[in-house]
Amino acid sequence: MLVCDEIKGIDVFFNARNVAIYGASASQNSVGQAIVQNFIKPQYTGKVYAVNPKYTNVLGVPCYPSLQEIPESVDLVVVAIPARLAPRVFEDIGKKGAKAAIVISGGFSETGPKGAELENEVVKLGKKYGTRIIGPNCVGVIDTSTHVDTFFLPEYRCARPKASNVANIALVSQSGAFAAAIADWTSELGLGVSKIISLGNKCDVDDDDLLCYLGDDSSTQVICYYTEGYDGNKGRSFFDTAREITPHKPVLVVKSGRGSRAKAAASSHTGSLAGLDSVADAAYKQSGVIRADNFDQMFDMAKALAMQPPAEGDRVLMITNGGGLGVMTTDALEALGLTIPNPSSDLESKLREDLPAYCAFGNPFDVVGDAGADRYDAIFREAIPSGEYDIFVVGMLLQTPSLGMEITNIIANYQKQSGKPFVVISMGGGFTTKAGEIMELMGVPTFATGEKGALAAKALARYGEIRLGDKFNKSAGAKKS
Amino acid sequence: MLVCDEIKGIDVFFNARNVAIYGASASQNSVGQAIVQNFIKPQYTGKVYAVNPKYTNVLGVPCYPSLQEIPESVDLVVVAIPARLAPRVFEDIGKKGAKAAIVISGGFSETGPKGAELENEVVKLGKKYGTRIIGPNCVGVIDTSTHVDTFFLPEYRCARPKASNVANIALVSQSGAFAAAIADWTSELGLGVSKIISLGNKCDVDDDDLLCYLGDDSSTQVICYYTEGYDGNKGRSFFDTAREITPHKPVLVVKSGRGSRAKAAASSHTGSLAGLDSVADAAYKQSGVIRADNFDQMFDMAKALAMQPPAEGDRVLMITNGGGLGVMTTDALEALGLTIPNPSSDLESKLREDLPAYCAFGNPFDVVGDAGADRYDAIFREAIPSGEYDIFVVGMLLQTPSLGMEITNIIANYQKQSGKPFVVISMGGGFTTKAGEIMELMGVPTFATGEKGALAAKALARYGEIRLGDKFNKSAGAKKS
Repeated sequence: MLVCDEIKGIDVFFNARNVAIYGASASQNSVGQAIVQNFIKPQYTGKVYAVNPKYTNVLGVPCYPSLQEIPESVDLVVVAIPARLAPRVFEDIGKKGAKAAIVISGGFSETGPKGAELENEVVKLGKKYGTRIIGPNCVGVIDTSTHVDTFFLPEYRCARPKASNVANIALVSQSGAFAAAIADWTSELGLGVSKIISLGNKCDVDDDDLLCYLGDDSSTQVICYYTEGYDGNKGRSFFDTAREITPHKPVLVVKSGRGSRAKAAASSHTGSLAGLDSVADAAYKQSGVIRADNFDQMFDMAKALAMQPPAEGDRVLMITNGGGLGVMTTDALEALGLTIPNPSSDLESKLREDLPAYCAFGNPFDVVGDAGADRYDAIFREAIPSGEYDIFVVGMLLQTPSLGMEITNIIANYQKQSGKPFVVISMGGGFTTKAGEIMELMGVPTFATGEKGALAAKALARYGEIRLGDKFNKSAGAKKS
Repeated sequence: MLVCDEIKGIDVFFNARNVAIYGASASQNSVGQAIVQNFIKPQYTGKVYAVNPKYTNVLGVPCYPSLQEIPESVDLVVVAIPARLAPRVFEDIGKKGAKAAIVISGGFSETGPKGAELENEVVKLGKKYGTRIIGPNCVGVIDTSTHVDTFFLPEYRCARPKASNVANIALVSQSGAFAAAIADWTSELGLGVSKIISLGNKCDVDDDDLLCYLGDDSSTQVICYYTEGYDGNKGRSFFDTAREITPHKPVLVVKSGRGSRAKAAASSHTGSLAGLDSVADAAYKQSGVIRADNFDQMFDMAKALAMQPPAEGDRVLMITNGGGLGVMTTDALEALGLTIPNPSSDLESKLREDLPAYCAFGNPFDVVGDAGADRYDAIFREAIPSGEYDIFVVGMLLQTPSLGMEITNIIANYQKQSGKPFVVISMGGGFTTKAGEIMELMGVPTFATGEKGALAAKALARYGEIRLGDKFNKSAGAKKS
């Protein structure tokens, strides 16, 4: 990856062996105390130091008047001090030789020219001493594996996401409030998370740097962004990098500011130039970044891409034990431009040997309400080796007890054996939710509605196209596998 | 309601004082046993009889060879017998004078001409004896208040929804599998449900009858449909009825079969003529039925309409403590065609007296991340009497502990005092979910994303327009309240 070879110094933000909290505080409910609290939790195994001339210890952590007094070298400095002190603090950071700083504090360029001047000084000092900087005006980072966690929000309000054994996403957010809300949300969503990064004013480290870093990060399977726009030059370099990364790792983005009102609001929120949305849209397409309309869509697509291989073509077989679900899902697949071919006459006659005549032998293939798992099994057994389909979308309505739980093993086994992408749709309440969790522990993403499942299938096809280019089998009729 | 005056005999399906189960069975896991099980639960307070020449009792319920032997008159008969026996059974039903029958069994018109002939005989006998019939080929009805429940699916697989003290929806579904999946789903969704009705082949009782009945049903605040299409005449009468009902009760529909593939699937599923989707779409608009693209959308809109008054105009004020949420929500509001006017200079100067200068005094109005509930309070206090807004969309990100739980009382009180519709958006995990449940117990619908909240606001505006007609204040600038 040529584009990314120059990017250095991002790793230490996530793998800091020790952390100094500048502005650590003994006052309850302060930001400077909340951050110390994160690092004294047992799951963070590095060392922690406090820095504040007012104290000698904070929550039992030794506290120093400046970084210079700390008796070893420092990897990462978290800065939570009034903006006007920032130049002095960054001299201290630079002289100590710390390679990374996260500036939580606001009061910089987002507040006007005076704050912008302070931010410029910080940037200059960072360049002078080789300190990479995230922020200012952000909540910083969460790493679910090393437990570096600078989010100053208490866990009872803002739960932390967890890494999954199956697959993980990383999220990079311009908005700190969204970073926090999404950390909290994904803690309950059953979606594995490797890292969340809130970039704030992006005075140094930006989307582009993280794209390079996360592109190489083995704990991240899908990279997700929330952005309100790009400054001219940074946009171009982001898209250049994306072209390098997207062929080997999926990148998703939610970009707000489509409409004129939202654009104005975005500008007052982060001061970023939202620019022409259509220009960004075209650049996403060209660079292989998949755009989602909203977070629901992004997380659904991310789950599918994190758990399943990309599709080699766009031909979907939809199987269902509920006719209505078949109709709704097919509607959504068709609207998304996927191909839904009927089984060939050869395949159909094979299927008719194994399945009752009152099934609907089309696409959607309706095994009907009294189906047991054996009917699904018979379809996979014949349809996979036929090579007529690239993606299997499986409607699994579990309200009827005739469909036993062995359906989950059957789906997972055929997925693994075939290497084809599978998506499961299971609509319902408590039993269904638990069965979906089991399905996902077996590696197959499961969705609550036909529309969500169809969107997941679309993401797998779109990413297959991004990855395979001309080799992607686009509506090309029957082919041998 | 002239159109509905002729509709008779629907009430007994939900308020049967006693029920006879034709085809009651002693064999475990049979449909005929599952239905008896529903009616011997303590919550059903009516009497239950079994009918089957094979037994003298089923699960302790007295079992008779035919209805004639039952020692009192019978209100409702649930029929779970092979289709070929149906004519004989309906003679028995008619002679007994039962006014309502739900035919669970399949094997009728959905299977071909022979089944259609049996179905015609059933219809004739129903007409002859004055028996109203739901089905055949359906799962029947659930009434969450009287506990009439013919769904033959065990509760561990298919949980039953509950009535809410706040507001309830009713769902009418052409598909039995969807009726069951939605019963199960809504049991966990925090959405109150009054009744679910699966119509199956609609040999007698149809969408139209239920629209009349539910339009007058005080336990139902919003009526929801899933349909795959209408037969020519029935479509027209449904839309005629809808024109009468929609000005006093909201009606929502999910209609599948937009695309050509889905249309073919729908035809094979229920044999209904999907017809031109654009014709149905126009008829929905003209008759004031609000169409949702999918169930997620329908339930979000239904929740808003069930809990809030319709809007008197389309001017939305969006308040948020997270800039990103403001931008995303505004994007969605704008895309839905709502008006998002800035506060007038008069209102702005009033707001500036009470709120810190670093808030963003626009629309979205960003009270920023360190806001307490007092800032929201100040905005409501000024913005509501200004008369500049018809709908209040309130972003409430609870990850930050500075926003105390009193925000929920404040929102609920202003909503009640003003009589204006409010929608809350709260994105996050466990704490947020619980706070949302509290907000909804106080009567204000709460959504997990800006897009869902915006759609809810749109539904409230659209229904206001349906209700008020020309009096609806469409983007009309400032008005006095």
